[in-house]
Amino acid sequence: MPVKCYAAFKAKGQLKEFFYEPKALGPWDVEIKITHCGICHSDIHLIDNDWQISDYPFVPGHEIVGTVIAVGSKVKNLKKGRRVGVGWQTASCMKCEWCLQGEENVCHHYQPTCVGKYGGFAESIRVDSRFAFLIPPSLQSESAAPLLCGGVTVFAPMRRHGVVSGMKMGVIGVGGLGHLAIQFARAMGCEVTAFSSTPAKTKEAKAFGARHFIDSRDARRIQRFERTFDFVLSTVNVNLDWSAYLKVLKPNGKLCVVGAVPKLTGITADALISGQKSLVGSAVGSRCVIQEMLEFAATHKIKSKIEALPLSQVNTAIKKVRANKARYRMVLCCA
Amino acid sequence: MPVKCYAAFKAKGQLKEFFYEPKALGPWDVEIKITHCGICHSDIHLIDNDWQISDYPFVPGHEIVGTVIAVGSKVKNLKKGRRVGVGWQTASCMKCEWCLQGEENVCHHYQPTCVGKYGGFAESIRVDSRFAFLIPPSLQSESAAPLLCGGVTVFAPMRRHGVVSGMKMGVIGVGGLGHLAIQFARAMGCEVTAFSSTPAKTKEAKAFGARHFIDSRDARRIQRFERTFDFVLSTVNVNLDWSAYLKVLKPNGKLCVVGAVPKLTGITADALISGQKSLVGSAVGSRCVIQEMLEFAATHKIKSKIEALPLSQVNTAIKKVRANKARYRMVLCCA
Repeated sequence: MPVKCYAAFKAKGQLKEFFYEPKALGPWDVEIKITHCGICHSDIHLIDNDWQISDYPFVPGHEIVGTVIAVGSKVKNLKKGRRVGVGWQTASCMKCEWCLQGEENVCHHYQPTCVGKYGGFAESIRVDSRFAFLIPPSLQSESAAPLLCGGVTVFAPMRRHGVVSGMKMGVIGVGGLGHLAIQFARAMGCEVTAFSSTPAKTKEAKAFGARHFIDSRDARRIQRFERTFDFVLSTVNVNLDWSAYLKVLKPNGKLCVVGAVPKLTGITADALISGQKSLVGSAVGSRCVIQEMLEFAATHKIKSKIEALPLSQVNTAIKKVRANKARYRMVLCCA
Repeated sequence: MPVKCYAAFKAKGQLKEFFYEPKALGPWDVEIKITHCGICHSDIHLIDNDWQISDYPFVPGHEIVGTVIAVGSKVKNLKKGRRVGVGWQTASCMKCEWCLQGEENVCHHYQPTCVGKYGGFAESIRVDSRFAFLIPPSLQSESAAPLLCGGVTVFAPMRRHGVVSGMKMGVIGVGGLGHLAIQFARAMGCEVTAFSSTPAKTKEAKAFGARHFIDSRDARRIQRFERTFDFVLSTVNVNLDWSAYLKVLKPNGKLCVVGAVPKLTGITADALISGQKSLVGSAVGSRCVIQEMLEFAATHKIKSKIEALPLSQVNTAIKKVRANKARYRMVLCCA
């Protein structure tokens, strides 16, 4: 039966209803009836062909939650009826040194969920079962969906770079990713400072767990935090005064970027050498970390704050994301 | 008795003979009769007041080897007659969290050897004994001197970032620092690739331990090394195509800068995010690492390749450094 979904037919185009014939269900595949799909900024970049890798018709969607409705012959860990999530990645080579050590997210031959394939703005999807993750029972589907990409994107670097209780952590941007990063960092026992250009978000940022809120346009205030943070996570996709954020790091501190900033300007060797600082990138997370993150979210009651709209109103939802009006993640209800 | 030394009397000036009255020998101090002092690029930056922190008369020199000729009342670990080395740093607060955990090199109140004080282009110097390091007997003084700053500057980041045998390591620049980095990396069991804009250094780079030599002006050749290196150490102080060097890193790889590049351009978030790469800075090394480095050098017969000149010919030596003609470190013989 053809799959009903929503596709862009050209760069920056409106999404329209679209039907496609699904590929045959492979031995490792599961078919998922999608109930919810979050809208990530990457979806917008891909609709617009900003990264020159989009094919049209293009079906976005890689923050998927739904129910398994069919399983391939080799699938042992999932059964019909189980609730699962799918994120940015749906395949990797499974044999390179990175896959072998459980770092599929940096496999050179990894496959994204909605590039070269049709994504999750749809009623169903067939994916490799090894990239479908059980959703812990206490998580609600609509607030679990954004964890699959946004959540792991901020959680994985905290784990990888040794963020632990007692640390002072900064989060730049209080949006889809930032509001989750604040919650994760608080639950890990950090003292969290939120940097945002929208002071109207102060109250909510503090409710998410931030101790301090700093207007990121207030350069003087930022300066007063010199040598303060162990770890600063930037979730924004605009160029900032990176030298200022390197300065607010303690010695040996790290500034981690997960937002797709086209150019990082203003960085000097001296800003890195004095105090031995690091500027690091992080790319979603491995399968192991995704499962860990979901369980951590369940344990610590971490929830995406979302606005839900039916799949049929996808263009309205996208408009809100483009206008930076989502508080804090738009989620499509697909069934 | 006044100390005879050589000082610049203005920015970019020639050095001239100069005498100063040494401060009283403090309880923790030692007085060192200097036999050798290396010339580091930082000395040139300081002579020229490039960093706006130089006072004149300015006496350079922070790669010092000599003999203890007097000890303060509290000094227990050094005696008259011992051969010691002094590097970039001669004091730290000894009470901040960094000093307490043995990372004096990132102490905010650390004091450099030749800034605000008179340095090692001199017949003698008085310094805090806690920043004077015993030179292992098998090291020759003239080739040990450059280890005190240049050596630890390249050794410390390899240790800190977990460089171990079997790794593929790149070294950018085959000069005072680079020729030591190649030797250290080779001795640690790495496969070393040297990048240099001077192909005439190929043979010597290989003698230092490089398996491969790449002309750093050959962008196409560099491109062929994509996803090759675990760790790349840049020892140069000029701007390069950093995006190209991020690309030659394996996933999770690190590009470490120790050369004072005024601006690091061409860095995108994507270049860091894809493959989760890091751009890191490193600042000399702690006391513990300096001593470890000296012992490592002795064990593995690592030697600076130097050209020695008497202290009185300091201007000739500096001219050679400025002209990039030193092979590979100029060392002044002070006694």
